[in-house]
Amino acid sequence: MAEIQPQKVYDVVVVGGGPAGLMASLCLTTYGFNILHIDERPHPTTAGRADGIQPRTIEVLRNIGGVSTAPVPGGPIVGQSLIGGGGVAKKVISQGVRVYEVAFWDPTATEKLARTSRAPSCPEFVDVVDNYTLLLHQGLIENAFLDEIQTRRTVLPEASPAPPNGLFRPYLLRNCRTLPTDASDPLSSTHPVECVIQHADSKVKHTIRSRYLLGCDGAKSIVRRCIAGGQVGDGEWQGKITMQGEATDIIWGVLDARVKTNFPDIKYKCLIHSKSEGSIMIIPREANLVRFYVQLQTSKDGKVVSIARDQATQDICIARAKKIFEPFELEFGYVDWFSVYQIGQRIASQYTLDQRIILGGDATHTHSPQAGQGMNISMLDMYSLAWKLNLVMKGLGKPEILLPSYEHERRGVAEELLKFDGAYSRLFSGRGVDAKHLPGGVDAEKFIQMFKQNAFFTSGCGAIYFANELNALPGAGVLSGPHARAFNPPGIKLVAGQRFIPGRVTRVADGNQVRLQQEVKMNGAFRIHLFVGDLRKTKPALDGFAAFVDSPASFFNRHRSPTGVRSSIVDGPGTVMNHTEDPPNAHIVNPFFTFLTIVGTHWYEWEINDIPSPLRLYRSQVYGDALFDRRVPEAGTNAPLHHKFGVDMQKGAIVVVRPDSYVGAIVELNEDGWLGLNDYFAGFLEVREPGKTGKAKF
Amino acid sequence: MAEIQPQKVYDVVVVGGGPAGLMASLCLTTYGFNILHIDERPHPTTAGRADGIQPRTIEVLRNIGGVSTAPVPGGPIVGQSLIGGGGVAKKVISQGVRVYEVAFWDPTATEKLARTSRAPSCPEFVDVVDNYTLLLHQGLIENAFLDEIQTRRTVLPEASPAPPNGLFRPYLLRNCRTLPTDASDPLSSTHPVECVIQHADSKVKHTIRSRYLLGCDGAKSIVRRCIAGGQVGDGEWQGKITMQGEATDIIWGVLDARVKTNFPDIKYKCLIHSKSEGSIMIIPREANLVRFYVQLQTSKDGKVVSIARDQATQDICIARAKKIFEPFELEFGYVDWFSVYQIGQRIASQYTLDQRIILGGDATHTHSPQAGQGMNISMLDMYSLAWKLNLVMKGLGKPEILLPSYEHERRGVAEELLKFDGAYSRLFSGRGVDAKHLPGGVDAEKFIQMFKQNAFFTSGCGAIYFANELNALPGAGVLSGPHARAFNPPGIKLVAGQRFIPGRVTRVADGNQVRLQQEVKMNGAFRIHLFVGDLRKTKPALDGFAAFVDSPASFFNRHRSPTGVRSSIVDGPGTVMNHTEDPPNAHIVNPFFTFLTIVGTHWYEWEINDIPSPLRLYRSQVYGDALFDRRVPEAGTNAPLHHKFGVDMQKGAIVVVRPDSYVGAIVELNEDGWLGLNDYFAGFLEVREPGKTGKAKF
Repeated sequence: MAEIQPQKVYDVVVVGGGPAGLMASLCLTTYGFNILHIDERPHPTTAGRADGIQPRTIEVLRNIGGVSTAPVPGGPIVGQSLIGGGGVAKKVISQGVRVYEVAFWDPTATEKLARTSRAPSCPEFVDVVDNYTLLLHQGLIENAFLDEIQTRRTVLPEASPAPPNGLFRPYLLRNCRTLPTDASDPLSSTHPVECVIQHADSKVKHTIRSRYLLGCDGAKSIVRRCIAGGQVGDGEWQGKITMQGEATDIIWGVLDARVKTNFPDIKYKCLIHSKSEGSIMIIPREANLVRFYVQLQTSKDGKVVSIARDQATQDICIARAKKIFEPFELEFGYVDWFSVYQIGQRIASQYTLDQRIILGGDATHTHSPQAGQGMNISMLDMYSLAWKLNLVMKGLGKPEILLPSYEHERRGVAEELLKFDGAYSRLFSGRGVDAKHLPGGVDAEKFIQMFKQNAFFTSGCGAIYFANELNALPGAGVLSGPHARAFNPPGIKLVAGQRFIPGRVTRVADGNQVRLQQEVKMNGAFRIHLFVGDLRKTKPALDGFAAFVDSPASFFNRHRSPTGVRSSIVDGPGTVMNHTEDPPNAHIVNPFFTFLTIVGTHWYEWEINDIPSPLRLYRSQVYGDALFDRRVPEAGTNAPLHHKFGVDMQKGAIVVVRPDSYVGAIVELNEDGWLGLNDYFAGFLEVREPGKTGKAKF
Repeated sequence: MAEIQPQKVYDVVVVGGGPAGLMASLCLTTYGFNILHIDERPHPTTAGRADGIQPRTIEVLRNIGGVSTAPVPGGPIVGQSLIGGGGVAKKVISQGVRVYEVAFWDPTATEKLARTSRAPSCPEFVDVVDNYTLLLHQGLIENAFLDEIQTRRTVLPEASPAPPNGLFRPYLLRNCRTLPTDASDPLSSTHPVECVIQHADSKVKHTIRSRYLLGCDGAKSIVRRCIAGGQVGDGEWQGKITMQGEATDIIWGVLDARVKTNFPDIKYKCLIHSKSEGSIMIIPREANLVRFYVQLQTSKDGKVVSIARDQATQDICIARAKKIFEPFELEFGYVDWFSVYQIGQRIASQYTLDQRIILGGDATHTHSPQAGQGMNISMLDMYSLAWKLNLVMKGLGKPEILLPSYEHERRGVAEELLKFDGAYSRLFSGRGVDAKHLPGGVDAEKFIQMFKQNAFFTSGCGAIYFANELNALPGAGVLSGPHARAFNPPGIKLVAGQRFIPGRVTRVADGNQVRLQQEVKMNGAFRIHLFVGDLRKTKPALDGFAAFVDSPASFFNRHRSPTGVRSSIVDGPGTVMNHTEDPPNAHIVNPFFTFLTIVGTHWYEWEINDIPSPLRLYRSQVYGDALFDRRVPEAGTNAPLHHKFGVDMQKGAIVVVRPDSYVGAIVELNEDGWLGLNDYFAGFLEVREPGKTGKAKF
């Protein structure tokens, strides 16, 4: 069978088949785009590399869900959610091992090595369902993505031919650029990006046109070099984009191996400082492997120096590890992977030059692997970019607002990471050599303190976005607009620019106990949560909101896709109820918004019919709030989620959650509130003539 | 390819490929036996039939777990647990829908039909993780079993050739009998059961010898007919085994269909009584189907009578359903399945005549399907029998005690079910016709009350076994033995003969937060739980127990398989730690016992090395008890599980959980206690000369 050849035109070209590129491919496929995904490697990663998935990333993967393509008896169900397959989350969870606890080992006055402290990997105060770090090698993660992409491609309305999993490999990027608008080139206004790719074996080249190109091709990004130019040629030190930051001469070895030991915490993540032999971090891994990060140093003329990179062999790494582990026995067996790295932190001066060719992942930030952050932040870069591209490419989002917000939000997180990682990795390396020899060489106590302080951030749950058009925080435009006072009602504990906190509720349509944050899967829609509080008190306000939504002036009717496309291949309301009032086809509504109504009054005391239309037409998204939450035990079963979120039961509140499950805006449940929401959405969405689409049609 | 032919000799022949037969095959395969499994149907069920999996059954399926055969880098790991695949539980959970709540609809003074009450499907007081009924059609359940059986067959040391999933179909059982011991027939002492099976298409017959034969071939069991004999020929009314009980003339139709309705609770389990048109039960199902149980009756000469069975068509069923649903609209679409049944309750007078050919499932008890119990109890029959057969066939169990205990325990549950079902189904049918016309015709209030009272039983968690050799309750032999006073210490809330209550603990070897009841997967071993309480107080007792276990006189050393076989293909200690102290091969220990040590003192305050050997050699089964449990909020994180189970922190306790996760015995943690355990195990296990196997060898 002849190898499948790339087409000439795509919506988006994704360069790189690592975690960032796979996340881009998975999200953009879910949003229904035709993408060209290339990777220069002939196969997925076979061992080692990145291996830690943090709690927030698991939450995101759960929200991406799994698409099921199993045949349904009686034929397809109109509007049926496609969600139901295993998905990336379930696959990686079933294959990985979990780290709940970290142990710190140091020399003490009496012992050569002793456990001096412990800490939860994800501290108790972080309200997250999967409160652990998941460990498995990068190839298993990549394969879970590839499987899910393959499944989703089969339900794409018009998937262009591609090899399995949609990934063309081995293909090299040879060049890419954005062409100027040119009347003789009709594609130049819609698909201005041109790239040249080449099959690594056959050497056949293809010139491709696309609307966007995403550079997910790692620390030595060719995409970055292509757009940055510069004399050195690798685009790192000169050119339009430079990698800013610094490297150290501290060399570490990384090893995935099976061992036999009498060290009691071999199944924990351990941060081990020896008295004079350097430091080690160990992490338990799938298949009974252990990952070792071994500081590689030696003595020279009585001084401690790093081993030269080209002399850092696996044998030296093992010998150093045994030495640092003393007095514990440590016997190495099968070695799955070995590598060497140099500690450094660098960030690209710009993520994009023209908002057409856009970088992310390791192409924009590199740092030491020890904090287990790189893969997570890289994946989430693309997760964050994809929904904005979705809105823009479907004619609904303002590109001049949404696209720059990607760098604004993700650079903030990357900078926070680099700051932490620089201090953390130097502190960790600083032990073992005389503290005075290295800047930042400090004692174990400070290191442990730092680890604990940063656990909120390293869990991924502390990645906070600042005020902009998407995050209605002080400093954002809407907070100086006419309805500013409706934003962030007093007492509210949710914060715009932060992730939506989890909570369990009862889905009234079927009585199921569900996790509210996972009810709407990633489908490109804004999730408008009506926290209704005491329905007897708030009914008039709720009716007012419902009437507003139905009015031509509402955000719901002003911001519609001009081409009427779906927001994603994953349908809106989660489950079709086959109620006579159900929308005949969920796509006729405005799929870029969905409504969830959470009532504080016990759900035995009211009916879905008491909720005004159109809110109640989202029948499967009406909830009772009466499930005990151990974080607010004092609330018992009396609206614990309202309590946890700080929603006034007498007044209610509206919480807008962005398609990436970040809180975008919180307003009062009153006219000021919903007019405020109109301002909020108008800040980054195009306004369409209401007459063109008419009233909300269900 | 020529069709695979059955062999001549097997350990066990299983007749019937429904849920009971599949459970038998899955368990016996797990225990490593060579079985012949036949079914007369050419394919698994394609639609309809049984569809409800109860909470206790889900718990059992989770405990059976999933075997993973994925290759491991670096080659197989000695002693690695095979557990890790999806398993039956995960497959059915991902495919089914959940019922958490039941709604009762009745005529009222003002409304033709109104919701008069609600009840949780599984009441709050039932302490179970999956607190819902799972609904999906029987074929999906069968397929999940078949997949898992297939996976497990690939790791069987000596699996005899068989078609996929180990199931020979379509094969009919033509005859079966137990042959007398005969010197000229060397198999007669070991494999006395002979059966003749016939391929349904080719008509080729095979005569098979086996040690046991299990009749899981349903209400019209051929196995039962073969052993019962009798004149009528169907073995039901005459012969050595009779089906005792009664039938009614009440006819019901069952329908799986897609509907459109304005009935608000269409996604709930609803029990609907109309004023004069009869009753309906609806249950939500996978793929947006709804199951309808429709009472089929009509008026004749002004009197209400049941429709004759041969006139009960799908159209009539639909017409009745629409009538009963009035005033709500109910429009039928695709119909997936339709059937008719007559309410009755019958139970076999004996489950076996010779403890060689043994019946279970529908072959021993039939009843109405409405309570959603049949498939559950049938599967659990075989789950309960299999581990006893395992002990007996491996020369460890006393057949004269263990085999009769199967009928003793399971008949008790079946009788309870029939009692409940008889009253329940008559009560439910009794409405709609004049209460006076039918015995037991009562009002809705009584029916609702009855439903709620029986929810503990219908969840499966209330299936209680009575005192016998396996359940150290008052009345059991050990409770009048020399160490009787050590059993069931004061305050203890666990009960022998009842399921082990769930609880979350921290696995100290790796800090993982786990569910204690799922830590040891079904592997044929007794799970000896050491609840240690305050380790500072109980350390001497714990040391004493450990020394006792190591002594030749302990149950651990007295009851060993004479052939040294494994207890199952699933290994003992869940995770290999690669600690230098780890047993080199878990199978050299006595795999029929495993030890779990749960310490009440916070696990930060002690080390695994403080636990005496051999208990600490089960490194991955040492736990800290410091995770909040909402059922004992007053305990906070101070040994909540000890608190919940009523274990005295100053004294500790030993809890023996049988291989089917029923509590077998609870004793004090002192010499009386462990000598009591010796008596307990000697009651049903063969004593081997300790000299023959020596000390516990790790």
